[in-house]
Amino acid sequence: MERIKTLQGSRDFLERLQNRQTTFMLVGSYTETAEIDGITVAGLPGFIDYTPALDMELLYYGYPKSMPDIAKMPDGPPSPVLITSAVRHLCPLPLHFIDAGLKVETKAPITKINSTFSNSIIKNSKIDAKELFLEGKRYAQEIAHTNEVFIIGEVVPAGTTTAYAITKALGYECDGWFASSSAESSVANLKRKIVDEAIEKHVSKQATLFEIISSVGDTMQPFVAGVATVISQTKQVVLGGGTQMAAVLAILKELSDSGENINFKNIALITTKWIAHDKQSNIATLLCAINPTINAFYSNFDFSDSNVKNLGLYDDGYVKEGVAAGAAIAYAYLNGIKQKEITKKVEEIYSSFA
Amino acid sequence: MERIKTLQGSRDFLERLQNRQTTFMLVGSYTETAEIDGITVAGLPGFIDYTPALDMELLYYGYPKSMPDIAKMPDGPPSPVLITSAVRHLCPLPLHFIDAGLKVETKAPITKINSTFSNSIIKNSKIDAKELFLEGKRYAQEIAHTNEVFIIGEVVPAGTTTAYAITKALGYECDGWFASSSAESSVANLKRKIVDEAIEKHVSKQATLFEIISSVGDTMQPFVAGVATVISQTKQVVLGGGTQMAAVLAILKELSDSGENINFKNIALITTKWIAHDKQSNIATLLCAINPTINAFYSNFDFSDSNVKNLGLYDDGYVKEGVAAGAAIAYAYLNGIKQKEITKKVEEIYSSFA
Repeated sequence: MERIKTLQGSRDFLERLQNRQTTFMLVGSYTETAEIDGITVAGLPGFIDYTPALDMELLYYGYPKSMPDIAKMPDGPPSPVLITSAVRHLCPLPLHFIDAGLKVETKAPITKINSTFSNSIIKNSKIDAKELFLEGKRYAQEIAHTNEVFIIGEVVPAGTTTAYAITKALGYECDGWFASSSAESSVANLKRKIVDEAIEKHVSKQATLFEIISSVGDTMQPFVAGVATVISQTKQVVLGGGTQMAAVLAILKELSDSGENINFKNIALITTKWIAHDKQSNIATLLCAINPTINAFYSNFDFSDSNVKNLGLYDDGYVKEGVAAGAAIAYAYLNGIKQKEITKKVEEIYSSFA
Repeated sequence: MERIKTLQGSRDFLERLQNRQTTFMLVGSYTETAEIDGITVAGLPGFIDYTPALDMELLYYGYPKSMPDIAKMPDGPPSPVLITSAVRHLCPLPLHFIDAGLKVETKAPITKINSTFSNSIIKNSKIDAKELFLEGKRYAQEIAHTNEVFIIGEVVPAGTTTAYAITKALGYECDGWFASSSAESSVANLKRKIVDEAIEKHVSKQATLFEIISSVGDTMQPFVAGVATVISQTKQVVLGGGTQMAAVLAILKELSDSGENINFKNIALITTKWIAHDKQSNIATLLCAINPTINAFYSNFDFSDSNVKNLGLYDDGYVKEGVAAGAAIAYAYLNGIKQKEITKKVEEIYSSFA
């Protein structure tokens, strides 16, 4: 079994990842788009704004500090943060959290960027994407020397909707390509309606890249684009995520076309098998449409080694990606960890909350 | 002229600093002790709580974002942040800001620790020093691998008062040893009165180290003690500052005596000549009382190369240290930069605000 499978691009990138010191950067952001009824199931109903804070606390402290009750996870599949946590137990994975506009602050140490969370895209996100891109570039200059590889993940509830919105506004005919935190197909219709309405209302035909992101994007996207731009000059950048990170690649592609110096040889997207095989979205087509030479991989991991019912729901398509779970698994694989070990550790962490 | 002078300890530490990749960590904190009338002049009257935010912005962006007006600095000596900024212009000095309890948030990217600012020591600081120490240790485990040397500075208005308070409460007869942001000798009397009153009210004879810090310390102190404890295991730690950082050494000494594993060979305090030669404080005696084998140095820098009147005020004792200016100069010296170059760059930055 090939542990890490290629979606497109060159496996040379993966070979260079071996035995490199890695920072796991997790960028949290919030968009009020998440409050549109039915748009996301990434978190506890009524407490979606807590998701980034709680995920980070679980990862950092081993338990959620801001809302201890949710330790008892409700019925249904658990958050993919369990997978990333399991990897962190199995091999060293130094964390670096970024608050690019959270609504609920996390109690874990987190680097706060000068940014607030964004409006719903229906009302106009109203963010300053250009400034956030420049902040990302500036910040990357401070940290690029601190490691050899930077895995950049995200925790942005409803972030697939903003990803879909900016990509569509950029001119891609991408209906049906974007993933969802829900397995319900009605959500896809709702998303399309929201995205079309937002673009119709807030994006003019002549809108520039940064105007598009400012109106229908979220703050994670331009910030991460800025970080990846600078770090890719000297180090390797793994965008850990599915279609949300593909949207960041669409931004990088636009920037590169307009003269920004971006070293795509040092950039790859790494996602999960659940996203790669998702029947309700199409990351392969999306990536190919952006640029077929961009490196993209997925970790060939599923819960077939587990008998835990709620973990099996991942294999049924109920959860697909998040907290850079796919990239974290790939990182574990590159460190010689096996699927069975990851599964066992996930079960162990999960049972401690049951 | 010896560029870096020894206060005590071994110069071997300095030799190992040569050509090492360095992170400049600046820990900001706030104590309402700063609001006691006459206790500090570290900032604009009425806006002392802005000092850490503004210093960090000047260092990071090159100008103060939160209060653009103060760009026009008032009469009197400018903030020592100009010195640290000058060094950053002359040699690479990657910044890492920590918010260990600021009152006014900075717009520069800053890692927020789960901590709020503290009460005045007169009312009881009411911080959880033990928890902050553990947070520091935990955080250091995430970052220790990212560089070879960590300069840790502080921006804590009234921080010499909390430093004095915890050191005295630990049993040192240290009246007259602690520095002040003011050249007025009346301030020393005020500080002594405040410190004695705070200890009398809030520190019992049986108080433990962490109880003492929790009652009359500030949040920077236990957090930095935790960071230094862990980083010193594998990397070099420079405590950049004067008597405030000496108080952190007093904490480390207590911890070490009670069994905490701290590698003092990898720790040094580096301060300015203005502190080393200060007639109103006595860092040499303070350090010696803590432990005469701890490494401590000062950078042999003054403004004798400058004709700018307000910079000359440093040499007259009006400003002595802050924003790890002494350690920053030492770092520049180790990188082959000369006093004249630093002076010229400070003048250049200062004149851009005049």
